[in-house]
Amino acid sequence: MIRVGIVGATGYGGAELIRLLAGHPHVQIANLYSSSVEGEALEKIFPHVFGLGLPKLAPIDAQSMSEENDVVFLATPAGVSAGLSPQLMELGGTKVIDLSGDFRLESGEAYRSWYKREPAPSEWVQKAVYGLTEWNQEQVAGASLIANPGCYPTATLLALIPVMKSGLVKPGSWIVDAKSGVSGSGRGLSMGVHFSEINENIHAYKVAKHQHTPEIEQELAKQSGVESLVQFTPHLVPMTRGILVTAYGQLEPGVSQEQVQELFESTYADKPFVRIRPAGTHPHTKEVLGSNYCDIAVHVDERTGRIILLSVIDNMVKGAAGQAIQNMNVMFQLPEQAGLPLVPVYP
Amino acid sequence: MIRVGIVGATGYGGAELIRLLAGHPHVQIANLYSSSVEGEALEKIFPHVFGLGLPKLAPIDAQSMSEENDVVFLATPAGVSAGLSPQLMELGGTKVIDLSGDFRLESGEAYRSWYKREPAPSEWVQKAVYGLTEWNQEQVAGASLIANPGCYPTATLLALIPVMKSGLVKPGSWIVDAKSGVSGSGRGLSMGVHFSEINENIHAYKVAKHQHTPEIEQELAKQSGVESLVQFTPHLVPMTRGILVTAYGQLEPGVSQEQVQELFESTYADKPFVRIRPAGTHPHTKEVLGSNYCDIAVHVDERTGRIILLSVIDNMVKGAAGQAIQNMNVMFQLPEQAGLPLVPVYP
Amino acid sequence: MIRVGIVGATGYGGAELIRLLAGHPHVQIANLYSSSVEGEALEKIFPHVFGLGLPKLAPIDAQSMSEENDVVFLATPAGVSAGLSPQLMELGGTKVIDLSGDFRLESGEAYRSWYKREPAPSEWVQKAVYGLTEWNQEQVAGASLIANPGCYPTATLLALIPVMKSGLVKPGSWIVDAKSGVSGSGRGLSMGVHFSEINENIHAYKVAKHQHTPEIEQELAKQSGVESLVQFTPHLVPMTRGILVTAYGQLEPGVSQEQVQELFESTYADKPFVRIRPAGTHPHTKEVLGSNYCDIAVHVDERTGRIILLSVIDNMVKGAAGQAIQNMNVMFQLPEQAGLPLVPVYP
Amino acid sequence: MIRVGIVGATGYGGAELIRLLAGHPHVQIANLYSSSVEGEALEKIFPHVFGLGLPKLAPIDAQSMSEENDVVFLATPAGVSAGLSPQLMELGGTKVIDLSGDFRLESGEAYRSWYKREPAPSEWVQKAVYGLTEWNQEQVAGASLIANPGCYPTATLLALIPVMKSGLVKPGSWIVDAKSGVSGSGRGLSMGVHFSEINENIHAYKVAKHQHTPEIEQELAKQSGVESLVQFTPHLVPMTRGILVTAYGQLEPGVSQEQVQELFESTYADKPFVRIRPAGTHPHTKEVLGSNYCDIAVHVDERTGRIILLSVIDNMVKGAAGQAIQNMNVMFQLPEQAGLPLVPVYP
Repeated sequence: MIRVGIVGATGYGGAELIRLLAGHPHVQIANLYSSSVEGEALEKIFPHVFGLGLPKLAPIDAQSMSEENDVVFLATPAGVSAGLSPQLMELGGTKVIDLSGDFRLESGEAYRSWYKREPAPSEWVQKAVYGLTEWNQEQVAGASLIANPGCYPTATLLALIPVMKSGLVKPGSWIVDAKSGVSGSGRGLSMGVHFSEINENIHAYKVAKHQHTPEIEQELAKQSGVESLVQFTPHLVPMTRGILVTAYGQLEPGVSQEQVQELFESTYADKPFVRIRPAGTHPHTKEVLGSNYCDIAVHVDERTGRIILLSVIDNMVKGAAGQAIQNMNVMFQLPEQAGLPLVPVYP
Repeated sequence: MIRVGIVGATGYGGAELIRLLAGHPHVQIANLYSSSVEGEALEKIFPHVFGLGLPKLAPIDAQSMSEENDVVFLATPAGVSAGLSPQLMELGGTKVIDLSGDFRLESGEAYRSWYKREPAPSEWVQKAVYGLTEWNQEQVAGASLIANPGCYPTATLLALIPVMKSGLVKPGSWIVDAKSGVSGSGRGLSMGVHFSEINENIHAYKVAKHQHTPEIEQELAKQSGVESLVQFTPHLVPMTRGILVTAYGQLEPGVSQEQVQELFESTYADKPFVRIRPAGTHPHTKEVLGSNYCDIAVHVDERTGRIILLSVIDNMVKGAAGQAIQNMNVMFQLPEQAGLPLVPVYP
Repeated sequence: MIRVGIVGATGYGGAELIRLLAGHPHVQIANLYSSSVEGEALEKIFPHVFGLGLPKLAPIDAQSMSEENDVVFLATPAGVSAGLSPQLMELGGTKVIDLSGDFRLESGEAYRSWYKREPAPSEWVQKAVYGLTEWNQEQVAGASLIANPGCYPTATLLALIPVMKSGLVKPGSWIVDAKSGVSGSGRGLSMGVHFSEINENIHAYKVAKHQHTPEIEQELAKQSGVESLVQFTPHLVPMTRGILVTAYGQLEPGVSQEQVQELFESTYADKPFVRIRPAGTHPHTKEVLGSNYCDIAVHVDERTGRIILLSVIDNMVKGAAGQAIQNMNVMFQLPEQAGLPLVPVYP
Repeated sequence: MIRVGIVGATGYGGAELIRLLAGHPHVQIANLYSSSVEGEALEKIFPHVFGLGLPKLAPIDAQSMSEENDVVFLATPAGVSAGLSPQLMELGGTKVIDLSGDFRLESGEAYRSWYKREPAPSEWVQKAVYGLTEWNQEQVAGASLIANPGCYPTATLLALIPVMKSGLVKPGSWIVDAKSGVSGSGRGLSMGVHFSEINENIHAYKVAKHQHTPEIEQELAKQSGVESLVQFTPHLVPMTRGILVTAYGQLEPGVSQEQVQELFESTYADKPFVRIRPAGTHPHTKEVLGSNYCDIAVHVDERTGRIILLSVIDNMVKGAAGQAIQNMNVMFQLPEQAGLPLVPVYP
């Protein structure tokens, strides 16, 4: 059994890791860590785990963490992993899967500019592997430190990479209009998560300023070989889970629906967590709820010459904890689907 | 007191007309019409009007309708008004405000192609005035037959017209990503409005095929003098009311935030129902709930050279019944705001 | 025009007072007060009032408040009015309508025990009139200080008083199971209003401990002449507005559905805001949304010998701001319905 | 591997059975049956199972069903199982777990009166075992035909039985106020599941008339040995999943919180799916979402002499498919928890 430790167990990312890892056949939840409430039982904070016999919350201590776990998941706010992960790496003994954004951007400059804080040590940023499993499987298999992708970038990149890589869409034409449930904002309190403010409401936020923009641009360029600015706009939807990305690109002349449909189907034919829906359909976020799937539908509008991509994930699963576990499975030579639910929760 | 008749009183559009007209100081709700449940009291269908003493539901009869009302609102499905409105026009005696799409598209060809049914008689389509009040106030004042704008076109056109008219955005570059509450689908039953299917869910629908596309293109061209294809994608959001339009256009070089902010503020300075929000803000649909406002925020992204417009309305008010009453006010020389709530319902 | 001042304008109670008073034909919103953000424009906090030209937020000062307003509404947390209202009363010049619980409980002991804080000066508590308009109309007309009823007590008392007063229900048998939307918790932040915690969720809270219990018992006893313990349990429902009270009482032998139906209909025959629904119906909270109605349905279960009362209000309107305005109307000899919407917002 | 067949695979009960059985280590989903859409792929109706390689929908035929399955789950509307289950029983070869109400009521009279239809053959009703696993484990182990409990009875009985059986509560005093998500109404279309009607709304329904009332009374009497009428009122809450039961009973004199707390904890000490929460807590439906738990909190109100029980389940899991699988596990001598998720989906 692989011994796993979870840092940030009192947040939503931590809770989702526990949900999925508790049912994982090859894993033992060895340690739960929290900087704020050490010594406490997690069920005091999360009554849904009442009676499950989980480990008590332990303080964050790199030395013991490196000794007592085979892999540590960091489900922490930006900035924490930047300090902790290099310590763990240098101690050796445990692998690290970081769900925060601290090791995703190769350029420290970009991190500083979009995150408004100091980047992690460049040495370790360069060693970290970007864990978009479907596209980096080999590097993930050999990695010690995974930068697990952001929720928006996951849904966006799985949709955009195939057509960019094939040269079918004009660089710079991408508009990515994304809609997310509220759990993506985490468990912290703010007016932006107050039920009475968010229920029966939709709004955009951080227009032209969201920190997932450079992550999308960086990985799109790496996978496709072409630099392309991306216009990214996130919206907050009155639901708890789910992300829908509606992405618009200007097609090169003459590209047909059949051609791109076939491209997507063949690209992801052997990827169990990416499901290419039939032409003409509209995937719903609810159709992947609780699961690690990314479902994608492709629409070519001949009238305007554009491709419209619809991509849905559960932001807590494929957009966070699920993909992290998928990466762990690859890192430990386990079946890629181990511990990940086969069927979404519906309705 | 102006005698008003409402056709389609058992639908949501009808209910909203009743809510607003019941408090209108210059209006008497003289007649309610329904093709399906004549003779019935409306409170049997809508318990929220219990005890209000509204007229019983009367059958649809053009002759008596033209005699007993000064104005008739048609809140009916596509196809009904195409037959009834010409009859009422020819009988004279009453003005007609049609909330359906039957008189909005000047081209019968376009109507046939997007609505998949036969268009209204061309003669009356030409005489109908498109009731986007802020832009057609003079024609509305003199009209007998109003084609009240669709919900999506209202939120879209109020945002796009100023910049297109000023030549600041490249024609053909518009991408309109719209999000709507479920009430826009009406009161009819389908899996698409089943609570368990829609709650905790978001999805796009009718990608590249929605019938509001040609309406937006037609009126944008008329007001700006420039033809421009528009990529329009509607989405269904788990909320009852509200539309948010996020519109993306490619700016001509050198256009600044200040310039477009000033353009919008001056364009709508004397329009009581359009509120231009400060630069950098993100209007929420909830901030106009129950009111006739359209709130717009303008974002210029210098990095990508695009303008991003955020426009919110209550689809039942400015997107339907409220704008219809605003048009009635103009047609009868009443104060434009008469009967329309000053303050949105919040929270 | 009556000059009104609103204390606590940055909370939801204040926002709802503004919504309703802005459209009131006999009222001018003269002053808005806030302890926290004086000098600020309210639209900075509540963008939905953007551009409405409301007064800036003024500091709380009893002297100027008493001079510049004919009536002051206090929409403040428990404890504030206990100090401020006596000051205003002693200065004279303005009437006070207090939406908090500070002047509702006649027994200081009870206040201390249920509110866990010191009560208001007994002298003023005795002078305050409990503003359940339908049952205290005469006293309200002559009052200077109104203790506006709590949201739960309003929906409960309007349902229970008629049958208790008629001696049809056994004292001590009442079980009041109440369900409320989240806006009743106010605008303050806590895990209990976090969207991700509350959405797709229902739970009871403060079982056997809610401070509205003694308020219900006190007023029920005063109106019916019979002391009766009441078992009161509130629940939080994933919606913004609305309260449903389901109340169970043990009937005296032989009481029939017809008898109680007739009792309720005659009791409230001339009360415009209480609507007795037909026998066998189930009122929905949504059917009173945004309005000042309390809708009640009566069910007699012959099998068990119980009466089941269903009572719905909008907690922000009849449960707070609307009833406060209804009381103001009575205090100033205005029509009882002035400024209060005739038709609920539906859907 | 146990071969299972699911009848009613196109409904929500069927979908939930598939979700849970697809991950069950000892089961193979051998057949899916549907009366309406035979020959179709299920993913045409439920896109969330896209690509999972489930069997095509087969017609309902007792002969082949009895041959090709070791156990058949019937997730069908009332009336279907009454005919089909006796056929399957007489053919032998397969066990049957019926999720409908057809075999729950021992009295044909009661079935006729509450369900308004003809009961199943009395012979088979007597042979059916009521599958409230925690209380009938032995009989379930030996059963061929299971009447799987209703959702409301499950949450109610697990809470009421311990105190009734111990004689701590006065018979006839029970009031059960239940709140359910919309999925309990199934996938059929009606105004009662229209999103715009149900969202932001709560209402009671079938007051004094719900068909789960006699089921609760029958099983409570069987387990406790005391007949007791139960006042049962269901409510519809704007959420998809979850049931909260708030139950009120009059305690015999002198019963303390500690006494009942201890009673519940010892009663369910070895039942993995019933979690007794600490005294003073309020379980949320969301804290059991997606899982087979029933979480119960006990409150004794010394002021009124009542016990208030709070009991929460996921109506689709412990209230339907999950308990059905729990019963299957017991019938086939599998571990009781096999295939059932350990951790609820949170948030």
